[in-house]
Amino acid sequence: MRRSLKAHRAAPGRVKGFIPCKKTTIIGVGLIGGSLALELKGISPCAKIVGVDRTLGNLKVARKRGLVDSYTTDIAKGVKNSELVVVATPVRSIERVLKIAAPHLKKGCIVTDVGSVKEKIAKKAASILPEGVFFVPGHPIAGTEFSGAEAALKGLFKGKKCILTPTASTDRKALKKIASLWRAAGSEVVVMDARTHDKALASVSHLPHFVAYALVGTVADIDKKTSVLPYSAGGLRDFTRIAASSPQMWTDICAMNKRALLKVVKKFEKTLEALRTLVEKGDFHSLRKKFERAKKVRGLLNPGVAKPGGC
Amino acid sequence: MRRSLKAHRAAPGRVKGFIPCKKTTIIGVGLIGGSLALELKGISPCAKIVGVDRTLGNLKVARKRGLVDSYTTDIAKGVKNSELVVVATPVRSIERVLKIAAPHLKKGCIVTDVGSVKEKIAKKAASILPEGVFFVPGHPIAGTEFSGAEAALKGLFKGKKCILTPTASTDRKALKKIASLWRAAGSEVVVMDARTHDKALASVSHLPHFVAYALVGTVADIDKKTSVLPYSAGGLRDFTRIAASSPQMWTDICAMNKRALLKVVKKFEKTLEALRTLVEKGDFHSLRKKFERAKKVRGLLNPGVAKPGGC
Repeated sequence: MRRSLKAHRAAPGRVKGFIPCKKTTIIGVGLIGGSLALELKGISPCAKIVGVDRTLGNLKVARKRGLVDSYTTDIAKGVKNSELVVVATPVRSIERVLKIAAPHLKKGCIVTDVGSVKEKIAKKAASILPEGVFFVPGHPIAGTEFSGAEAALKGLFKGKKCILTPTASTDRKALKKIASLWRAAGSEVVVMDARTHDKALASVSHLPHFVAYALVGTVADIDKKTSVLPYSAGGLRDFTRIAASSPQMWTDICAMNKRALLKVVKKFEKTLEALRTLVEKGDFHSLRKKFERAKKVRGLLNPGVAKPGGC
Repeated sequence: MRRSLKAHRAAPGRVKGFIPCKKTTIIGVGLIGGSLALELKGISPCAKIVGVDRTLGNLKVARKRGLVDSYTTDIAKGVKNSELVVVATPVRSIERVLKIAAPHLKKGCIVTDVGSVKEKIAKKAASILPEGVFFVPGHPIAGTEFSGAEAALKGLFKGKKCILTPTASTDRKALKKIASLWRAAGSEVVVMDARTHDKALASVSHLPHFVAYALVGTVADIDKKTSVLPYSAGGLRDFTRIAASSPQMWTDICAMNKRALLKVVKKFEKTLEALRTLVEKGDFHSLRKKFERAKKVRGLLNPGVAKPGGC
């Protein structure tokens, strides 16, 4: 029997609420952080956005592109007096960022993240952030294979799902505000528990990336011995597009969602072995049935991903 | 040491030669056969193209779209008096088609195919076709995930490679004519031996499709138990695009290129296992190095596949 996900769509309704006219800090002004900054500028033109990043060059690009009003490489300075802090760094850096930011966050500040792994992050945040600061774990299912402020894109979140994974202790008002923010950015907000999120994303996002890296690595190994890449076609091109995603980001995701990822990787290895065995045995009738079943999946996809997008 | 492929580009030069003003037969008026018919119409407007297909409905679409001047479901009738016969059926049907056509081919007729597997086809053709009929094994590396006459596309072969795999007994004049035809369709013609072709294509085309079917099948299995597909993103979307290719065509390719395919599938399984072990051991430094290497492959691809295309 197919279990339905412990998820529900946040009640629809007019976008209202979260229009911060004061200070918002975006830590990690990359593809996601930068694109969200662009949306914030549209939603609330008077909002003052401070960009925080490790790389000064990236911050300069962000400023030049109008993603942020000011910038700093100093997290403590960047979050001071902010009403909203969005942590949009690679997932493995979120803990470190929260630790540095924690003593400098003002009371009532809402902190949210955009990480592709949620259970570990929510636990860490709960132990790091002081009382009176509200953390809302979030994950916009959007992206491209590009990264950095240069890659930020208006409309990136439009029609995409944004998953929020509150715990029992998450402040409901803060949750509502972050939900409003993502709806204003054009996303459909879905609320589910963190573990369910991590399992689902391991299947539909982390596994495909892992497999793409493995496939492209295999072809690269073969090409090292005998030149084959010049004869590549569309099939391989799509794999290389996926495998062109940020290695650091995807290593972090593998590390943070290790358990769920390993489970689905092993499932995939078994399926692959079964298909390979069909070829070995010459059972091409069964092979075709398997291929036919896979072909049908395309129609079941999230329509929000009909256009290019990554992670 | 990296061995260079036993391949050479056919000498460049002005497109000349193959402009048949008489009868050309295309057997299998699908994506490739139909798109080649469109090119022939452009190259030689006075050419009379006969379409042969199992499906009358598909032939009617081909006629309506102007891909063919006339059509029949009767191979014997279709090839009669033709100067050129292009077999563009799924690879496993080529043998059957050649057997039916053989007694009806006129002396001097050139027969070519577009199959993704070459060694077996060339051997079969040599044993089936009568003396005085010239067979040139070919494979345009082009396509999309769509099929049928409806999917035929002008310019499909532009900037793409077309591999010809003549044997020692292939007629040189016939080879030159088929090379001219593909060049006129905008392709870069590459000549190599059939076994080398089959090995290269197993790596860069057949393996990616096989893996995509396995990956999408795995996610479908998971989704049957717990709904995960609604949370899919760009990574999975690309896999489902590849796995939406014709199941019959890809089963045929797996059957016809079994040996070379199994070899690369096993290589892939080893690479995947190695990556999985790195995650299990928590060696994320090595994992990132592997991801970084895969990321670089994108820049080495055949530039002809920068735009969408399949198989």
